[in-house]
Amino acid sequence: MPNADVLKDIETPAVVIDLDVVDANIQRMQAAIGSRGVGLRPHVKSHKSVNLARRQLEAGAVGITVSSVGEAEVFAEAGVDDIFLAYTIWAGSARRAERILNLHERVRSFSVGVDSAAGAEQLAAATRPSQHALRVLVEIDSGAHRTGVRPEDAGALAAECLRLGLDVAGIFTYAGHAGRSREARVSGAADEIDAAERAIASLTAKGIPVGTVSAGSTPTALFSARAPVTESRPGEYIFNDADNVRLGTCESLADVGLHVATTVVSTAVEGQVIIDAGTKTLGREGNVDKGFGLVPSLPGSSLRLLNEHHGYLSIPDGVKRPAVGDVLTVVPNHACPVANLFDEYIVIADGAPVARWPVDARGHLS
Amino acid sequence: MPNADVLKDIETPAVVIDLDVVDANIQRMQAAIGSRGVGLRPHVKSHKSVNLARRQLEAGAVGITVSSVGEAEVFAEAGVDDIFLAYTIWAGSARRAERILNLHERVRSFSVGVDSAAGAEQLAAATRPSQHALRVLVEIDSGAHRTGVRPEDAGALAAECLRLGLDVAGIFTYAGHAGRSREARVSGAADEIDAAERAIASLTAKGIPVGTVSAGSTPTALFSARAPVTESRPGEYIFNDADNVRLGTCESLADVGLHVATTVVSTAVEGQVIIDAGTKTLGREGNVDKGFGLVPSLPGSSLRLLNEHHGYLSIPDGVKRPAVGDVLTVVPNHACPVANLFDEYIVIADGAPVARWPVDARGHLS
Repeated sequence: MPNADVLKDIETPAVVIDLDVVDANIQRMQAAIGSRGVGLRPHVKSHKSVNLARRQLEAGAVGITVSSVGEAEVFAEAGVDDIFLAYTIWAGSARRAERILNLHERVRSFSVGVDSAAGAEQLAAATRPSQHALRVLVEIDSGAHRTGVRPEDAGALAAECLRLGLDVAGIFTYAGHAGRSREARVSGAADEIDAAERAIASLTAKGIPVGTVSAGSTPTALFSARAPVTESRPGEYIFNDADNVRLGTCESLADVGLHVATTVVSTAVEGQVIIDAGTKTLGREGNVDKGFGLVPSLPGSSLRLLNEHHGYLSIPDGVKRPAVGDVLTVVPNHACPVANLFDEYIVIADGAPVARWPVDARGHLS
Repeated sequence: MPNADVLKDIETPAVVIDLDVVDANIQRMQAAIGSRGVGLRPHVKSHKSVNLARRQLEAGAVGITVSSVGEAEVFAEAGVDDIFLAYTIWAGSARRAERILNLHERVRSFSVGVDSAAGAEQLAAATRPSQHALRVLVEIDSGAHRTGVRPEDAGALAAECLRLGLDVAGIFTYAGHAGRSREARVSGAADEIDAAERAIASLTAKGIPVGTVSAGSTPTALFSARAPVTESRPGEYIFNDADNVRLGTCESLADVGLHVATTVVSTAVEGQVIIDAGTKTLGREGNVDKGFGLVPSLPGSSLRLLNEHHGYLSIPDGVKRPAVGDVLTVVPNHACPVANLFDEYIVIADGAPVARWPVDARGHLS
């Protein structure tokens, strides 16, 4: 947690990352996934930072995962040469098709998700001018019921992709349905493995080899990083957040590498202070029960309500209320939306500010 | 509502504004507030667009309201010369003090909110190098229990501001506690009026004249635009959104001027489609009951769940499911966070795209 003295000259609200914690998080996940013989392909939607992606790659990541064409472009421009766009992108518009073709030609290894013949057809049409086939991964549904074909239908879609002239590189899945407890996450990871095995059988029955089997998000990564899975795509682990602490996907608040620095702007109402972090800083991630973020320096406090530019922080009896002008540190419930709301990170190392890094791919949704 | 044909070449997700509806919304609020002899000072946090602020000023707005120093700077740079920063800004850091002094020197009429002697002292210190006094408005609490002193304490704080060398321009309040029904909004507006009258009495007892009495947000503006109120600060009315339709603060969906264009990216799971608008497009504004936005072209559909880049849209039996690649139009529950997530608006007039306008003050939180 950044020291209050370090933050006193920072204009708030601001996002502060502690590089010592971030590097430890990078190393820990890399060691855990790597030691199982699985490639770590971090999802950079969590941080959208070229500098942070470079640290992940230097630590041993096999490439990166992105969620939009715009994100892929930012990281390609920065020289990242192995990018998986884990999204069932629709390439229908002329401009979108052109951008996908450009990424395909430019990035050494570029692959895209598909879960429909119609989507595959657009991707094939977009990349037809190229000398080589676009690599696609067939998305399968392991229980989230979001995107992805049923595992037993994966072979048919893969065959259709081949017929369209695409290169089928493998399969991927996301256990978004995994519950919050450790048991539920173990169960979600088992669903990923089970779905992957059924999908592999479906492709094999069509005579289609499966190179890449991609599964795993921060909640399930440690449990699904085993055969037949070859790659894992966690994202949040680089920062962790209050929800990760609650989930047990990190040990404690000491593993959280991203904080919001905020200033007390009003103490006019008894029993609370108002801070300058609202939904435009923290997103509306939370609820009345768990609050909208944690303020560890004020035990028992509750960030009970957010407006766009105001946070209502209840202070329990017996805890000294901060004064107007005091800078506080908030642990967000969910780090990813916070990073996406800011143009830069304030970077701290060895307890002191050392840099400001751009959130290079902030926005870039399409 | 933008026509589907108009949107088919747009890369999604994208924010589309219909200038005909927006202009009608601007004119309607201007006429309603202006006809009561009250000045309209729109809150530009809702749109963060210089072009849209200019349209509001050309229609008769007396100035604009902003929520951060950064927003004030963007609009000052664009030449807006009457800006009220309706926020209890803390000017403690050296850089923040310098920025406030710069706005004070540069903007013809610049005023700032205060609700504490400590905050007032920092503002006075920041602007002491200037030849003229900074204008402040004392914030009073009309029932939201967020920021603002009790109305009967307003005179004492105003006296303290004068002692510090500030210019007390008046008072302001925000009825954030007003409930959803028309009666509750009328009641919230009555609280604004009542609090304003008590605060005026408190200042008058100290011999301090009250020039500006500012109250009113989109839900309460029409009910509190009467003496002693001199200025009203609604923001959302320029766009309206699904919550405004539910509240009755606009007539119908035809009054909504901001939409999200989104593409169906998966139909793999029966009974639903997945769209490319998630929390990074719509914010997490909503709940399971009302959903996270409306898709009027699909009656009975429910945008029941959002991930960061995916929206789960349930399609009722009997309604034809859209196909992968179809572009849909979502009415957000809350327009303000949506505008803040995008770098540009796609502007439609007479049913056709005419421009792309930057969301000039996107971010700019500090």
